Amino acid sequence: MNMREQYINAKLSWIAKNTKANIIRELLKSTSIPDMISFGGGVPDPETFPRHEMAKIAKDVIENEYKISLQYGSTEGDELLKAGYIKLLKKHNGIEGLKSENIVITTGSQQALDLIGRTFLDPDSICAICSPVYLGAVSAFRARDPRFITMPMEIDGPDINVLEQKISALSDDEKQKIKFIYIVSSFDNPTGISLSLEKRQRLLDFAYSNDLIIVEDDPYGALRFEGEQVPTIYKLAQDNDKYEVNPVLLLNTFSKVLSPGLRMGIVIGDPIMVRRLVMAKQGADLCTSTLTQRLTARYLENYDPIVEMEPTLELYASKRDTMIKAFEDILSEIEGVTWTYPNGGLFTWVTLPEEIDTMEMLEMAKKNKIIYIPGEAFSVNEETRQLVKNSMRVSFCLPSHEEIVEGNHRLVKTIKEYMELKGLV
Amino acid sequence: MNMREQYINAKLSWIAKNTKANIIRELLKSTSIPDMISFGGGVPDPETFPRHEMAKIAKDVIENEYKISLQYGSTEGDELLKAGYIKLLKKHNGIEGLKSENIVITTGSQQALDLIGRTFLDPDSICAICSPVYLGAVSAFRARDPRFITMPMEIDGPDINVLEQKISALSDDEKQKIKFIYIVSSFDNPTGISLSLEKRQRLLDFAYSNDLIIVEDDPYGALRFEGEQVPTIYKLAQDNDKYEVNPVLLLNTFSKVLSPGLRMGIVIGDPIMVRRLVMAKQGADLCTSTLTQRLTARYLENYDPIVEMEPTLELYASKRDTMIKAFEDILSEIEGVTWTYPNGGLFTWVTLPEEIDTMEMLEMAKKNKIIYIPGEAFSVNEETRQLVKNSMRVSFCLPSHEEIVEGNHRLVKTIKEYMELKGLV
Repeated sequence: MNMREQYINAKLSWIAKNTKANIIRELLKSTSIPDMISFGGGVPDPETFPRHEMAKIAKDVIENEYKISLQYGSTEGDELLKAGYIKLLKKHNGIEGLKSENIVITTGSQQALDLIGRTFLDPDSICAICSPVYLGAVSAFRARDPRFITMPMEIDGPDINVLEQKISALSDDEKQKIKFIYIVSSFDNPTGISLSLEKRQRLLDFAYSNDLIIVEDDPYGALRFEGEQVPTIYKLAQDNDKYEVNPVLLLNTFSKVLSPGLRMGIVIGDPIMVRRLVMAKQGADLCTSTLTQRLTARYLENYDPIVEMEPTLELYASKRDTMIKAFEDILSEIEGVTWTYPNGGLFTWVTLPEEIDTMEMLEMAKKNKIIYIPGEAFSVNEETRQLVKNSMRVSFCLPSHEEIVEGNHRLVKTIKEYMELKGLV
Repeated sequence: MNMREQYINAKLSWIAKNTKANIIRELLKSTSIPDMISFGGGVPDPETFPRHEMAKIAKDVIENEYKISLQYGSTEGDELLKAGYIKLLKKHNGIEGLKSENIVITTGSQQALDLIGRTFLDPDSICAICSPVYLGAVSAFRARDPRFITMPMEIDGPDINVLEQKISALSDDEKQKIKFIYIVSSFDNPTGISLSLEKRQRLLDFAYSNDLIIVEDDPYGALRFEGEQVPTIYKLAQDNDKYEVNPVLLLNTFSKVLSPGLRMGIVIGDPIMVRRLVMAKQGADLCTSTLTQRLTARYLENYDPIVEMEPTLELYASKRDTMIKAFEDILSEIEGVTWTYPNGGLFTWVTLPEEIDTMEMLEMAKKNKIIYIPGEAFSVNEETRQLVKNSMRVSFCLPSHEEIVEGNHRLVKTIKEYMELKGLV
């Protein structure tokens, strides 16, 4: 260690010492290599952004609303944006009766996760998550150093029996320290799986009877290709009088339905919880960009992003079809490979034979100009790593149809090379 | 407490329980009351924002650079913006040799303060601050629950003797826990005071010889009305070979020189420290808005914001003059009142007779349609509150010349009413 490192490292907090770089963000840097095909990033296709409309609106809100769009704003968020979003939630999600005080605008959903961590977690707290789990949520919660309880993911959502068992095995003191259950309810990242109505209801009942909060992350719910919409857990709680408290914080974002560059997240919940998140946000970044908030607000006045999304969803659905067909035609050459079939969203979850470590295989994949996200990236400890180390998250939204097919060939080539090298054939 | 409060409060982290609402943000809500004159907010005059230029650039970067400006970006920040800022720092601050790895773009300076808190502070850490101190910094650091050591502010910067005494009185174990000194080096918020060159050098030497980091917050340095520029502490460290480590993190922002609505902050420092801040930012909000980053980057290519600011500085300087004259002509009717004379920035610091509690007086001020920020808002504990409870921060940038004069009349009226009520006359 040189003197600079010594000087600086001596000053680091234990959180900083224990923070690892986000492997997905690091991996995505490789996507700029020429000819690389990426199944990695959960990023939308930029051709789907309504750029002409947004360009016009941006010009207007800067020229004519500069006293708002270029000035500091309230920490709670732009009232016009909140009003527009309340209408949108009513129209498309059937959520009624929301007021401004139910909503805080955040700098992307990532900030919502961070604010939730600050607001609810202490270093000895416990929170329940799925295995595999969205890495960004874990990295936000880890800033508070909680303990995680994991529920294995099944085809219709997490195994709630396991959650019940694990929690009932806790001491009374530990039970007091469970704060919330974190769940991506529709078209999960990384698995693509959606919770069935029955599991949503059961998870809600379990949370309510145990005085827990549910953090329902729903960035992909609007990206449904087929099948009937399932109510959010938030709505299930709101619509049934037996819940005297709605214990759900619903997280939404415009990153998937409009543009991630805006960094526009929304949290919907009980005003008491929302108020606490606002107080945490004051220290975190004062307010989200008033420019991107007002731009989004005016876009909502003029367009319905869910309706505008329809061509995009057709595009994503056709890419999903191409990906699944490529799995059947090409990837299935590898014996024992399985995958999830998502009805929406951006991801499928591919599981390879048990002996394969997808993290270890990644360097070979990169040489073959194909990137995926190794399952290990969605694990929180050695136990959960073991369960997912032979899996990978495959995103189908960004590569072209041709790249999807070619990418599968490269994947097969990589797996074969890896198995040969490891003496697995 | 109703059932909702009980349910939710039982889940709160101790940080959430101990977080108070930011008094300044709460107070600023009163500024929307008709006829209210506000000496409160540190917000720039929106008429000074280059809205026509920004509107045009925003339209261009959305239309033509949508693959960047509407997409996710790297956590480190837009390379084009970093390059533009490096040129700007070289031209106006004489800071040379900076590379991309010396810089992280943050969601306003507030996020920089938050990331610094996460990266360096543990609950038993100690950091040194001024008294009075910028409240936003304290609220960011408080999320990590450190202990504060305070240095009283003098006319040329903090009393470093006091800092030396307080630190030498610590145990060896405590000394290991001092992480950084936080300072607004030019035209301080709230006092308007700038550190003299001698104090900058002394503070740097003290920090370096004690292995401490200096967090140099410089949002106002470019807002100089008169007098010669004083080098940043960062530059003093960089220019002298005796410092083998540059222990300074320099915080800048475009909120005062372009527009706060962009939420554009910049941290400059040793790449090892910057890398740690980037890792903390991954969990905090993934990246700052790529749209507002690219907009700022293209603005920097076409305009020099420091040059463009010249008319704004003339405006602010003339308002400062009006404010100081109003103090002399009107406010000085109150015996014993004193104020600072800032050579730049947005604030003066007014101290009233000892018996007056400006926080207590605020309700009466509001009735008289005048707002200021009570000194108490810039204190961290009872000891420092006692030192500043008869002071107030007065901002001169936003009210008109007429409002500045009228506001001083209202202030005098309020003080007299308060003194009468308290039997102080």
